[in-house]
Amino acid sequence: MTNVKPQIPRVVPQREASPCDRLFAGRLPGIRVYGKSQDGEPVPFRRIDLAPTPAAFGGGRQPAIFLADVTGPFGEGDGTGSPRRRTRPAPGSPTQYEAAKAGVITPEMSFVAERENLRRDALIEELAAIGNPKAKALYERSAKAKRFTPEDVRALVAAREAVIPLNFRHPEAEPMAIGRAFATKVNANIGTSSISKDWHEEIGKLREALFCGADTVMDLSTGAHIVETREALLRSSPVPVGTVPIYEALERAGKPEDLTWEHFRDVMEAQAKQGVDYMTIHAGVLRDHVALTKDRLTGIVSRGGGLLAAWMHAKREENFLYLHFDEILEIARRYDVTLSLGDGLRSGSVHDGCDKAQFAELKTLGELNRRAAEAGVQVMIEGPGHIVLPKVELNQQLEDEWCSRAPFYTLGPLVTDMGAGYDHITAAIGGALIGAAGTAMLCYVTPKEHLGLPDAADVREGMAAFRIAAHAADLARGIPGADLRDLAMSSARFEFRWNDQFALSVDPARAAAFHDETLSGSGAREAHFCSMCGPQFCPMKLARDLFD
Amino acid sequence: MTNVKPQIPRVVPQREASPCDRLFAGRLPGIRVYGKSQDGEPVPFRRIDLAPTPAAFGGGRQPAIFLADVTGPFGEGDGTGSPRRRTRPAPGSPTQYEAAKAGVITPEMSFVAERENLRRDALIEELAAIGNPKAKALYERSAKAKRFTPEDVRALVAAREAVIPLNFRHPEAEPMAIGRAFATKVNANIGTSSISKDWHEEIGKLREALFCGADTVMDLSTGAHIVETREALLRSSPVPVGTVPIYEALERAGKPEDLTWEHFRDVMEAQAKQGVDYMTIHAGVLRDHVALTKDRLTGIVSRGGGLLAAWMHAKREENFLYLHFDEILEIARRYDVTLSLGDGLRSGSVHDGCDKAQFAELKTLGELNRRAAEAGVQVMIEGPGHIVLPKVELNQQLEDEWCSRAPFYTLGPLVTDMGAGYDHITAAIGGALIGAAGTAMLCYVTPKEHLGLPDAADVREGMAAFRIAAHAADLARGIPGADLRDLAMSSARFEFRWNDQFALSVDPARAAAFHDETLSGSGAREAHFCSMCGPQFCPMKLARDLFD
Repeated sequence: MTNVKPQIPRVVPQREASPCDRLFAGRLPGIRVYGKSQDGEPVPFRRIDLAPTPAAFGGGRQPAIFLADVTGPFGEGDGTGSPRRRTRPAPGSPTQYEAAKAGVITPEMSFVAERENLRRDALIEELAAIGNPKAKALYERSAKAKRFTPEDVRALVAAREAVIPLNFRHPEAEPMAIGRAFATKVNANIGTSSISKDWHEEIGKLREALFCGADTVMDLSTGAHIVETREALLRSSPVPVGTVPIYEALERAGKPEDLTWEHFRDVMEAQAKQGVDYMTIHAGVLRDHVALTKDRLTGIVSRGGGLLAAWMHAKREENFLYLHFDEILEIARRYDVTLSLGDGLRSGSVHDGCDKAQFAELKTLGELNRRAAEAGVQVMIEGPGHIVLPKVELNQQLEDEWCSRAPFYTLGPLVTDMGAGYDHITAAIGGALIGAAGTAMLCYVTPKEHLGLPDAADVREGMAAFRIAAHAADLARGIPGADLRDLAMSSARFEFRWNDQFALSVDPARAAAFHDETLSGSGAREAHFCSMCGPQFCPMKLARDLFD
Repeated sequence: MTNVKPQIPRVVPQREASPCDRLFAGRLPGIRVYGKSQDGEPVPFRRIDLAPTPAAFGGGRQPAIFLADVTGPFGEGDGTGSPRRRTRPAPGSPTQYEAAKAGVITPEMSFVAERENLRRDALIEELAAIGNPKAKALYERSAKAKRFTPEDVRALVAAREAVIPLNFRHPEAEPMAIGRAFATKVNANIGTSSISKDWHEEIGKLREALFCGADTVMDLSTGAHIVETREALLRSSPVPVGTVPIYEALERAGKPEDLTWEHFRDVMEAQAKQGVDYMTIHAGVLRDHVALTKDRLTGIVSRGGGLLAAWMHAKREENFLYLHFDEILEIARRYDVTLSLGDGLRSGSVHDGCDKAQFAELKTLGELNRRAAEAGVQVMIEGPGHIVLPKVELNQQLEDEWCSRAPFYTLGPLVTDMGAGYDHITAAIGGALIGAAGTAMLCYVTPKEHLGLPDAADVREGMAAFRIAAHAADLARGIPGADLRDLAMSSARFEFRWNDQFALSVDPARAAAFHDETLSGSGAREAHFCSMCGPQFCPMKLARDLFD
């Protein structure tokens, strides 16, 4: 495992700002630093150096807090995005799952362990060095909570409770893992439709998604320029890229009824060769299941599901993805493409949520997951959809039972149908709840859902909502070290360390802008109050003296 | 019970748009119509006339859907807000609770019953008249679900599971009820701080809040112009107005340690006389409880709680609101001011959530609620705060147990501390969940929370997030008729009735703008696809033919 920059310093020194720095100033908190995997590979983090406690509150140095950094080259000094490449085995090598089953710890597993541990070893060292007993008392328990070893990661991949989606042909991507034991991941859907004009814009959306912390991106492009868009995204992306190959297969076929297995196979092979890390495959949409959607309010709302239902209806044949699943597994195994078994019959309205069609498909996905295990292929299971709150957790429970705790990857769920324009919120509510129940990755929903194709501004809103949902889920599941961020944030809040609050928030630039909007000018960021209560009415200020 | 416009027609005829209409065009869906309470009093609704099913999908007329309308005079044709006044009994009359206990059904109880039933009688009539069997099958069950009678409302008020916050001196307000049997309500906090310059802006925030569906507003003004601001809001507001009288008491006293019971009593009496419908009273913050906050990360974060803790500390005396609670009850009873027993020790960080201090206060609030019952005073109980997801429901359970199922009124809860800039989402997640568990009213949180004083744009974001959370809670609790909106929305979605989707969404103007942003021009709102998937890839279009 080598890297084109073998001598990356642990802390990147600060330097004069370039024009590009200024463009992105404040968008990423702190500075890029590198941890080291067990194999010596550098693993990027954001290091947030906190200001000391103000003298008025007793003073005392604060440790640095480390956050995951998925921005790859975009998050380095000049933000221009020249990719770094990892050395990857040739296609046909053992997949991560096969290696794990054979007891082999791959470099990717070591990388993942380092990443998930959030540099808590460094935090422990700092706590010892700064000699601030209050800070030590605050952070120590979380800092010392369970650390993942590379062996832990291997065992979880072998148990099929985690996946490391990383195509042998995607050297630009950094390893990451999706599984309930780890921090909840967020996927950002980007990509063109036939209505959108400028596919170059998709790189801008990728960058926006990464700045907001997207752990993976899916390129859902349809229309013209599918191949070029995907190539540009893959060659730029430091995070795994997912696709839904049937979209391109349809573009090649022209009409649903002209689509053949061969179209699909060729597209899947070509995309795998290009480096796609995971692919949504709607192999669980069977003819018998489609019949169960007859009395639905909103029928079929998955593009792949709708397409296959139309195809099966026109051809009077079973779903060719199901019939040819062994060949799909063969391609997936060769490139170590993780299959994301798609929920083509997810509900498009709360009325249809948790119906027979949805659950019949989920059971079939469990069967396909078992076949994938035999073939050495990694699998995630996709989930709903629109579901009322009291039924959200049921979906995770049934996935556990029928799909053997394979990583669950859900779209929301959306807990009401009436949120158009704000469906990132509707979906973040359900996402937080199902994440708390064990879902490993949440697919974001943007404010444009149900209305149109999202642009970069929508990506930002959707990502913020879902980073919050994912983090709330991490706290709920007790992911080791997750609460360090909350502890640091609340400590900064109680001590009016405004810049620290911005840096630790989900969107530093926005938090700072909102603060300055109502209270700006010199000194405002040092003020021991904000414009909400004003100086006389700050409760934290009022009550602080009681115990000092 | 009379009204200055006794002959209001049931359906306001449409007329030419005025300049003011155009200003607010699209902000409120449908048209104002009136139902009639059992006493013959007109009760306002928005009537959303739906377009017929397109001929391509089989045609068929659609019924109108009715939504609650809280906008009062602001939601009428010219939007200028000249208030309508109800006749109200003189102060000293029996409170709603006393009347209920005596078996008397007040005009307000009849009004509430009509409002909560959402004109479902009219819907049933229409379904019979339009002769569309599909629409009938879709809506009939919800339309015929339990209707509230005025007697039901009386029984719930008598059982202290619902309140009707309506001061005898607030004739501008329309009756509404807060209780878990009814639709979940949303409160919008507005008001100045000493940092904000222009208190006239608060009327703009009130209008914004009402346009977004605020069921009550709280005037949290501090600083100068407290009395004028409140007078302007009360005389304009068609929804109940709440306050926290200790803020004004402190303005009068100058410093916390100079504050006396007499300051508070005079302010409370003056505000009650002015017409304030409910007041937050932090009578449960006892000296012994404050000691329990010693090891907290963020101490005390309620303004009232912090102030009282500082006062008790300085004076070495027990909370004067607790000591003088009988006199507080006497004032509240006289004007029928509902007491909102404040959670002065709510947690300001997930670290502090559900600690001994918070729960000690909650138990005390239960004791105060029992004393209020004896005095004939209506009560709500305020709740947290920052709470991790798995502990959210516990708060409702303990409130049920200790506070005898009095209406619970929560701020969020916020499920993580790191959401600054997006805390409307952090809080909507917790709000939806605690609403599902039984909370009767959610206090919105805006994106400016923790950062500054919200402006009208923030009010809109906060309200949208919380209307979604409240509606998700309604669906979860099975509030009769709540799902009609989702059924209508999803039906419109499946039939590409775009204007209907906008009208039924949480923010019609934004939904329409988002749609038009990526697909505009003539015909776009009739198109059987959107820009997200484009015409070829619309799954609903693809799958629709299967069963037709």
